[in-house]
Amino acid sequence: MLIVQKFGGTSVGDIDRIKNVAKKVKAEIDQNNKVIVVVSAMSGVTNQLVGYCKQVSDLTKDAALEEYDSIVSSGEQVTSGLLALEMQSIGFKARSFLGWQIPIQTDGTPSKATIEAIDGDLLNKTLEDYDVLIVAGFQGIDGISGRIATLGRGGSDTSAVAIAAAVKADRCDIFTDVDGVYTTDPRITDKARRLRKVTYEEMLEMAYSGSKVLQTRSVSTAMSHNVRVRVLSTFEETTENSGTLLVNNNEDIMERRIVTGISCSKNEVHVTLEKMPDHPGLSAVIFGALAEKQVNVDMIVQNISFDGKRIDITFTTSKDEVERVKEAINDIKDEVHFETLKIDDNIAKISVIGVGMASNVGIAHTMFKAMADKSINMLLISTSEIKISTLIPKEYAELAVRVLHDAFELEKRRVE
Amino acid sequence: MLIVQKFGGTSVGDIDRIKNVAKKVKAEIDQNNKVIVVVSAMSGVTNQLVGYCKQVSDLTKDAALEEYDSIVSSGEQVTSGLLALEMQSIGFKARSFLGWQIPIQTDGTPSKATIEAIDGDLLNKTLEDYDVLIVAGFQGIDGISGRIATLGRGGSDTSAVAIAAAVKADRCDIFTDVDGVYTTDPRITDKARRLRKVTYEEMLEMAYSGSKVLQTRSVSTAMSHNVRVRVLSTFEETTENSGTLLVNNNEDIMERRIVTGISCSKNEVHVTLEKMPDHPGLSAVIFGALAEKQVNVDMIVQNISFDGKRIDITFTTSKDEVERVKEAINDIKDEVHFETLKIDDNIAKISVIGVGMASNVGIAHTMFKAMADKSINMLLISTSEIKISTLIPKEYAELAVRVLHDAFELEKRRVE
Repeated sequence: MLIVQKFGGTSVGDIDRIKNVAKKVKAEIDQNNKVIVVVSAMSGVTNQLVGYCKQVSDLTKDAALEEYDSIVSSGEQVTSGLLALEMQSIGFKARSFLGWQIPIQTDGTPSKATIEAIDGDLLNKTLEDYDVLIVAGFQGIDGISGRIATLGRGGSDTSAVAIAAAVKADRCDIFTDVDGVYTTDPRITDKARRLRKVTYEEMLEMAYSGSKVLQTRSVSTAMSHNVRVRVLSTFEETTENSGTLLVNNNEDIMERRIVTGISCSKNEVHVTLEKMPDHPGLSAVIFGALAEKQVNVDMIVQNISFDGKRIDITFTTSKDEVERVKEAINDIKDEVHFETLKIDDNIAKISVIGVGMASNVGIAHTMFKAMADKSINMLLISTSEIKISTLIPKEYAELAVRVLHDAFELEKRRVE
Repeated sequence: MLIVQKFGGTSVGDIDRIKNVAKKVKAEIDQNNKVIVVVSAMSGVTNQLVGYCKQVSDLTKDAALEEYDSIVSSGEQVTSGLLALEMQSIGFKARSFLGWQIPIQTDGTPSKATIEAIDGDLLNKTLEDYDVLIVAGFQGIDGISGRIATLGRGGSDTSAVAIAAAVKADRCDIFTDVDGVYTTDPRITDKARRLRKVTYEEMLEMAYSGSKVLQTRSVSTAMSHNVRVRVLSTFEETTENSGTLLVNNNEDIMERRIVTGISCSKNEVHVTLEKMPDHPGLSAVIFGALAEKQVNVDMIVQNISFDGKRIDITFTTSKDEVERVKEAINDIKDEVHFETLKIDDNIAKISVIGVGMASNVGIAHTMFKAMADKSINMLLISTSEIKISTLIPKEYAELAVRVLHDAFELEKRRVE
């Protein structure tokens, strides 16, 4: 088999941990598998490099972000080389590859580029002569400028999945510091249980709704290329039953679940433009301005004001986009004539996720009743086929997670 | 004018120093010059990376050295990007280049590759749109493997000179932590004076004889491409008279000097194979074995033993080659039948250097008399057209330097 293994920053945090990673790789080779490893930078190194950059630049222009990419990508360059050396030292034919050597072609904005294409031929051909190849994660080469481009924070997960797709790997194991995907955050309730399998769609909603186990982009890449992804712990022994496997919707999950998990995100802000004179195209102006500043908007609600003549528009976005929200609103303030602008980050988003929800009617009722029983006020609600999200005051976040985990009896389910 | 500036590890040792370097670059741009900067890694970083490598590998095989190169070259990748960011922040159009992007083609052993070719076209063409380009020193790309190769310690000087040659720069300024080349090491005698000009040949002999101001390879590259190199301090204000300029032999040096400087090296070992039965080809066997182990031999002396039937062969090499010397000698011990092998590192090499020596007869006599007056025993002597070197007991090294500096009246000369 051909296995892709990905190890994050804490997994390669020092030389001893790199040696531990080498043992995980060796275990696969010993079972006659070929392995491609994707590594992040040593934990802390990327932050240090970003800190250096911020001391000499505000990093707003593309020219600056291109230098930023060249600088921060060096972290993965170091760990890929060190793991290759350790694999050689324990007796294997190993070599490292940098993004530009494969090449991993990217496009889009430097510092948050997207992978455009990976030619798997060089890797597959090189593997004929090697036991293991180690690829620097998080990086590629911009097709036009010929410069190093990085994929943004957490991009190594996406590197691993995209490489697995390009080389047609049999499985892509994402090693991290948790042992899989849980019904909810185990730090919030000890009733949380590890899921043996989860569908791509569920994982996507979970990643989007606050679970930090996998980056959203890596899940959607896995889904669109049908890559068999497993999430598991670097620090525990790996067995066949380790971790959580991402599967297709139609793949055999023995006992169908209605609700799979509860996510909680405290990284949201709630923005309200109050009392605007309504006119056709008002929303288009507002959300056009936000799009221009590359603000990702999540939930949106529009209300008619109590006097019936003016409207409020409310949306949520992530905390780190607040500055750009302010700039965008400022650009259009003479056009939209709002009375007040309210920005509130004292909120949490709680999501109930499950592929079984689409064909099940009682979910929203169960959810809302559980919240009402504890007097938890829901500021905003949004739904998709496999998810119901609600915005609540931040202080109720943990309580809400526990209440919903109980309400959907997630601790009792046969988890697989 | 087109100026190449090179800054070493202490010059870019932290963010404040990188900002100081940016001011030096700005000064040249403000005079309507275009600038290409070559940088080393932050001081300490290369040692840290080498330390990591040694924890996971003995770094003997080429496959390991290729990883080593990929790892340690990341240090220059970081500083080149940071300086580019700082130049942008103070208002200039700047970008960095890595070795593989130019490309700087290398060949030979990884970790001590030599520059084979640099196409200056891309740099010159890019400079039409930019004020300054910053190139990561010490690195290139191997023409065959397509992997990053480093030039060995101190290789950034060579990068700078080779780039200056490739782009046909008007001058190559090597910024370091000393303010130029001195008649001898100022830490040994305060009579040492800075030389305003020195010929390539003299500088080459000085670098080879122990002066650490410039790396030998960078000087020979400058000489063969006739690059106008200046050595000066990062930490002092730069004027027209700063530093030491490397010039051609035939260039106008106002007052001809006979002796230019005194060098002192304590990095030598003295190896003697005693009492070997002489036969034709004996030396060829010995020095062939040494060459096979890539040992650089400096001085060589062959003596007939007191009994007239056997001979001694003595040579010097640098301390870090002792292990390979032992291996080489061991390989041929059944062939050459020496009685004893003596390895002595308790020695120093003192060299008197000057292009005027070739046409001047009294130099050796003045040198030997000065040494004899202080009862300094000379173990070995070797001469070239512009240099006399002698090996002496290490404890006399500083005394010998001061005595010779006085004997040739170097403190009295008009230094230019």
